[in-house]
Amino acid sequence: MAAPPTPDPTLLAGGPAGPRALRPLVETVLAALADGAAARCGPLPRGGPDAVTRRLLTRYGAALPAQGTGAHDALHSLVTALAEGAADPADPHCAAHLHAPPLAVAAAADLAAAALNPSMDSWDQAPAASVLERHLTGALAALVHPAGPAPDALVTTGGTEANLLGALLARERLGPRLTLVCGANAHHSVRRAAWLLGLPAPLVLPTPTGALDPGAVAAALDRLDAAGAARALVVATAGTTDAGLIDPLPGLADALAAHRARGAAALHVDAAYGGPLLLSDAHRAKVAGLDRADSVTLDLHKLGWQPVAAGLLTVPDTAWLAALTQRADYLNAEDDTEAGLPDLLGRSLRTTRRPDILKIAVTIRALGTTGLAALVDSVCDAARALAALVAAEPRLTLWARPTISTVLFRPAGAADEQVAAIRRRLLAEGRAVLGRACALDAAGRPALWLKATLLNPQAQHSDLAALIKLVLDQADHTTEPEHPEHESPAKDGSR
Amino acid sequence: MAAPPTPDPTLLAGGPAGPRALRPLVETVLAALADGAAARCGPLPRGGPDAVTRRLLTRYGAALPAQGTGAHDALHSLVTALAEGAADPADPHCAAHLHAPPLAVAAAADLAAAALNPSMDSWDQAPAASVLERHLTGALAALVHPAGPAPDALVTTGGTEANLLGALLARERLGPRLTLVCGANAHHSVRRAAWLLGLPAPLVLPTPTGALDPGAVAAALDRLDAAGAARALVVATAGTTDAGLIDPLPGLADALAAHRARGAAALHVDAAYGGPLLLSDAHRAKVAGLDRADSVTLDLHKLGWQPVAAGLLTVPDTAWLAALTQRADYLNAEDDTEAGLPDLLGRSLRTTRRPDILKIAVTIRALGTTGLAALVDSVCDAARALAALVAAEPRLTLWARPTISTVLFRPAGAADEQVAAIRRRLLAEGRAVLGRACALDAAGRPALWLKATLLNPQAQHSDLAALIKLVLDQADHTTEPEHPEHESPAKDGSR
Repeated sequence: MAAPPTPDPTLLAGGPAGPRALRPLVETVLAALADGAAARCGPLPRGGPDAVTRRLLTRYGAALPAQGTGAHDALHSLVTALAEGAADPADPHCAAHLHAPPLAVAAAADLAAAALNPSMDSWDQAPAASVLERHLTGALAALVHPAGPAPDALVTTGGTEANLLGALLARERLGPRLTLVCGANAHHSVRRAAWLLGLPAPLVLPTPTGALDPGAVAAALDRLDAAGAARALVVATAGTTDAGLIDPLPGLADALAAHRARGAAALHVDAAYGGPLLLSDAHRAKVAGLDRADSVTLDLHKLGWQPVAAGLLTVPDTAWLAALTQRADYLNAEDDTEAGLPDLLGRSLRTTRRPDILKIAVTIRALGTTGLAALVDSVCDAARALAALVAAEPRLTLWARPTISTVLFRPAGAADEQVAAIRRRLLAEGRAVLGRACALDAAGRPALWLKATLLNPQAQHSDLAALIKLVLDQADHTTEPEHPEHESPAKDGSR
Repeated sequence: MAAPPTPDPTLLAGGPAGPRALRPLVETVLAALADGAAARCGPLPRGGPDAVTRRLLTRYGAALPAQGTGAHDALHSLVTALAEGAADPADPHCAAHLHAPPLAVAAAADLAAAALNPSMDSWDQAPAASVLERHLTGALAALVHPAGPAPDALVTTGGTEANLLGALLARERLGPRLTLVCGANAHHSVRRAAWLLGLPAPLVLPTPTGALDPGAVAAALDRLDAAGAARALVVATAGTTDAGLIDPLPGLADALAAHRARGAAALHVDAAYGGPLLLSDAHRAKVAGLDRADSVTLDLHKLGWQPVAAGLLTVPDTAWLAALTQRADYLNAEDDTEAGLPDLLGRSLRTTRRPDILKIAVTIRALGTTGLAALVDSVCDAARALAALVAAEPRLTLWARPTISTVLFRPAGAADEQVAAIRRRLLAEGRAVLGRACALDAAGRPALWLKATLLNPQAQHSDLAALIKLVLDQADHTTEPEHPEHESPAKDGSR
């Protein structure tokens, strides 16, 4: 590629001249993304961690050079290196985690957020962006809590911050003698939130089936009562990380109804994964009961195809957010608020924050809720198709029919060490990114499973069939010693 | 503008086809940014909050339409609306806050982060990005802590999260009976961190001069000792929000040396604003003593010209981050870690997070540390020039010579209400975004000041002179009643 003329690297992204400054630089980024993807040629780089580190540092050189190399060189070299060394969720064989391939329309919108750089902590840093956020968060919250008196939502960095916020709001409403009650299937951020907030360790209930049992929750609340522990926040999950299961939300809401009625308990639902099923006529019933929660975590960088970050915490009543109110004279002085300047500071645990709402708003406007629902349906369909392929293959064992878009499976009769080794070899050879999960097998014994989390709406049936073949081929080699550092001498480009 | 052919709005940003999908959408974004800036024609929209809300909602319509309007319409309409309604820090008269105009090269790099969407919580979601982060954070930490045994840094969403992390690490090292000791000049996030972490309210020492007095800190530590409070984290500030002052770091480090030697105290420095003075030969001496801190907050979306977010917490010894270690089998199973897969989960309070390090790395490579230092110097020079203009103008009072790039001033003899009204009118008329700060006047009386935080390296002397004139003109009208909602019938485009 002939290098474009080198612009002044100190040009700004904003202002009337910003678009002119950005255009050639963005073109360099797009070229570098294409070059990097071509060099990688697959879902992730070959050779495992040591090879990736070597290649990146060779390209990168000194971290803090005194003299710069200019905008085009910096963009082309580093973006190419990052793309070549990426695990790209846009590849159908990159399917380990709740790591969605972002839509181009959302990534393009995010460029505008970066260029304008509104900061959502005061009106005079984000006049229009703050209006957009209030408008759309209110509408999204009303989708989750249609009967709520004043549904509202805060934008977060993801499910982890939203779960923290849910626990914090409960601490402030129910008091500091709060115990979080969750299943063993809950996300690790629930435990972490308790630690961060100075609360006792959560009461973690076993979930042998993968989902939380309302009877076990009711018994736990009674035990806490008997032990004199005053207050509890029950944390349920709509879309577990391991298996994509949905806790029985109506039953759980019933189980704590009496405690909640006397202000002794509240219900938070971590719907980071499952929340967008609400949009789908085919899948909405699976998250029935979500509207009975006191707070709900959503993550539109999962089943919403946004670039990270796009988290939300929704509540049925904006009054419940009052605990976050704070005053900082430089941002929301009382006389400014009285004179009509909106006070935004209480809408986040962060101060400065970018307008992540923009990409969400653009995506919803571009696709409509029916367009987004079609994407949700397509990945759920893909998971059913993959499960059917597994079920039809005698050399593989399917854990269960998928609830959302996660499929657990393993080579029939394999030891756990073999399952883990298959995953690591596929990673090291750059062939596939599969996840892992512990779950009981049909005989009730704990076992390690391969996990495919299907979030790519462009995945074809042939991609799924090829993924099965990769696993079977790799399983045939599990008696050989593991060479995670081994890099094949020739790249054949096949997956 | 003739609309380009409408692409499928479900195209992905990643993979080999991603750049082709992004190119026309990015072009639409750049056109919309230009259209919005032209429509705004100034540092912020005219008419105040109600007018901005009306215009945005008129353009926006239904928040959750069932049918989409396609990628180009969604991008063009919403990005234009956002740009038209932005307070754009690239305009030299947008100078209220530590709200930097991002460099085009950094915003362009951030597009690659959005398109590739690496998630920094596990190696198999961010192979190369995680290497880049380790490499550059180590180098940046070594700049702050050159004598540290193993300097390291974590990437955060900004100063607020970095201050929270600093307090959390202190709580884990010094124990839960921890009191934060800070000045009244400290950022509000220090108080918030104590609240979040379940610590007692901070001990806030008066700072009548605007900076923390080491003698007052020594006395406070002795009082805490006498009261049996076991442990203290002293939080100093290098670049206060109100006046850009730097606490006397060497004196503060001396004041707590004895307590620190017996493990009873630690020093955190919030250098969100002042940290990058380290890069400048002209200004480095002002932050001498930063290397004596146990943890330091940096924010490269301030004096680093990054799009939000670009925060860091640096520590002299990576071992001090051990409290953040956590295990989640799906992300860092023990056998995977033993087999050589890097464990990234303990490097943040977040789980999923975008690679904010990419734009920082690209910027440093493009400009070099000398290029960044030149930008630091230029905004410090601009502040001195503005202060000189104020000092030469008998109708204005200068608070003090600027330390970094913040200038406090007020119309001579004005009442506080007039000062606040001038700021709000400039906002409502779309002419200037100035901040406000309380500080003692020359007679030792508390007063409200206008605050200009100069972060725009492209600002010219004529821009500064015009800003002074705007304030003087507005001051001449302060006897008239305030009409924050008033929108002038004709736009004259002047500032």
